[in-house]
Amino acid sequence: MTASFSVSNPAFRERVTASFTDQQVMHTLGARLMEIQPGRVVIELPYQQALTQQHGFLHAGIVTTVIDSACGYAAFTLMPADAEILSVEFKINLLSPARGEKLIAVGQVIKAGRNLTVCHGDAFMQNGDRQKPVAHMVGTMMAIHNRDDLKK
Amino acid sequence: MTASFSVSNPAFRERVTASFTDQQVMHTLGARLMEIQPGRVVIELPYQQALTQQHGFLHAGIVTTVIDSACGYAAFTLMPADAEILSVEFKINLLSPARGEKLIAVGQVIKAGRNLTVCHGDAFMQNGDRQKPVAHMVGTMMAIHNRDDLKK
Amino acid sequence: MTASFSVSNPAFRERVTASFTDQQVMHTLGARLMEIQPGRVVIELPYQQALTQQHGFLHAGIVTTVIDSACGYAAFTLMPADAEILSVEFKINLLSPARGEKLIAVGQVIKAGRNLTVCHGDAFMQNGDRQKPVAHMVGTMMAIHNRDDLKK
Amino acid sequence: MTASFSVSNPAFRERVTASFTDQQVMHTLGARLMEIQPGRVVIELPYQQALTQQHGFLHAGIVTTVIDSACGYAAFTLMPADAEILSVEFKINLLSPARGEKLIAVGQVIKAGRNLTVCHGDAFMQNGDRQKPVAHMVGTMMAIHNRDDLKK
Repeated sequence: MTASFSVSNPAFRERVTASFTDQQVMHTLGARLMEIQPGRVVIELPYQQALTQQHGFLHAGIVTTVIDSACGYAAFTLMPADAEILSVEFKINLLSPARGEKLIAVGQVIKAGRNLTVCHGDAFMQNGDRQKPVAHMVGTMMAIHNRDDLKK
Repeated sequence: MTASFSVSNPAFRERVTASFTDQQVMHTLGARLMEIQPGRVVIELPYQQALTQQHGFLHAGIVTTVIDSACGYAAFTLMPADAEILSVEFKINLLSPARGEKLIAVGQVIKAGRNLTVCHGDAFMQNGDRQKPVAHMVGTMMAIHNRDDLKK
Repeated sequence: MTASFSVSNPAFRERVTASFTDQQVMHTLGARLMEIQPGRVVIELPYQQALTQQHGFLHAGIVTTVIDSACGYAAFTLMPADAEILSVEFKINLLSPARGEKLIAVGQVIKAGRNLTVCHGDAFMQNGDRQKPVAHMVGTMMAIHNRDDLKK
Repeated sequence: MTASFSVSNPAFRERVTASFTDQQVMHTLGARLMEIQPGRVVIELPYQQALTQQHGFLHAGIVTTVIDSACGYAAFTLMPADAEILSVEFKINLLSPARGEKLIAVGQVIKAGRNLTVCHGDAFMQNGDRQKPVAHMVGTMMAIHNRDDLKK
């Protein structure tokens, strides 16, 4: 599943960072952008009671939010400078309850296409020096060209 | 796809309401429980800039959070009084950007089983008196029995 | 979930029928095209021991084959005359073992876009005059333009 | 994603082989069981025109059939001797058209649970000494205990 990818926008790190900064929900949740490589992005989210479901675990949708952004930005690293990005669809399997100190979501590109990019994402909960897998995502991201309604 | 379901816990409305109240993320996001029927639950979320992605739409993960809770509670209406519920997996297709006044998520049971319940969820953005479909989910929910770690 | 769709190719029925005839796997399996409406296609498959898994049910992948074609052709009914179609991704939930006399797969369009069309598909097993749901699919189909390698 | 798994049935290879032999669809398609390791199974399918869609590629559903069996048997290697196995759900992304000499499907366990096991599957088309990824699956398999209707 590991692959080397060709980068079409040399300023991909700046572009991902700027877009992440524009995602207000990332600020609201307290998520942090930790790593940006071609075809790979890591985002962390500290555990917070305010984001939990009825048993005190991080809500599956919040876990999804962080993995979706990690996958989307992994795809975005490989897109040309004029493309915008949107999620087309994703599927997530919840492997274990998300409790611990922080959530670490790793998004990686499986296949980069002109329009559609397929990614997988893995989320772990860290407790001390242990990491436990909590969710696995596979999703499709779309490069959007020339859509004025997506311009800021 | 419409079906009639048999209810095993007559107090299902109280049980769903209590569990929803325990989901701290629902308070944090500002989501409201609007309707509880056997096999069907509706949750609304007012649009907020604090929950948006880089183009100002509600983040796909936030839309997912609301649909997942609607689907989970739709399944929960049909479960016996001693069961807890967890999401096993779900898949979501994003149909249109989520902008407008409020998100309405309708979760409905497709098939209720002893352990696993399959649901679909549809989310709409309301603008004035117009509703536009923005996402479609299919997911699997699991009834959990006798798991002390899920007790409050 | 019901919608009315606009047809861009008036000869959509002939086009779907011709493409179905070109799907050699449909002949091999013994599948039959039963209904073609804008945004909706029905395909049937008689039960055959030769297509079963280890318990004597139709194999989930065979059920998938028929629903995928039903969904793909449902999308194809709405595409322009010069478009080819490919499946991008799909997700299927297996609701009950597929045993009985014949499988009936109904593919329907949820949202038709210029490039991507989202469909859902429902499969039933018929026994006498009873129909039992056995599988539910959601998938994404892509219109392909100007790809010579897809021309016959 | 690599993991070591504990085997509860020492005769897991015989059990997988016997069940594969019982899957009549595998004989019908001409699929061959190539490798059985704890948590990992490989199945091959030679390309055949009789299994193609309208452009002459292996039909997505046929690719799915082979990956689903590879994933199911990967899960089955870790199950106790009295368990039967059924697919609960799976999701597949089609990465490239499936043309070439033969399809190689590798199923691997992500997380093995008492009742539910999550797997991923990767399918490649081989042409000469080149292998090209054509599909990626993630799915959920269920161990079934004491279901007489699944006994032969």
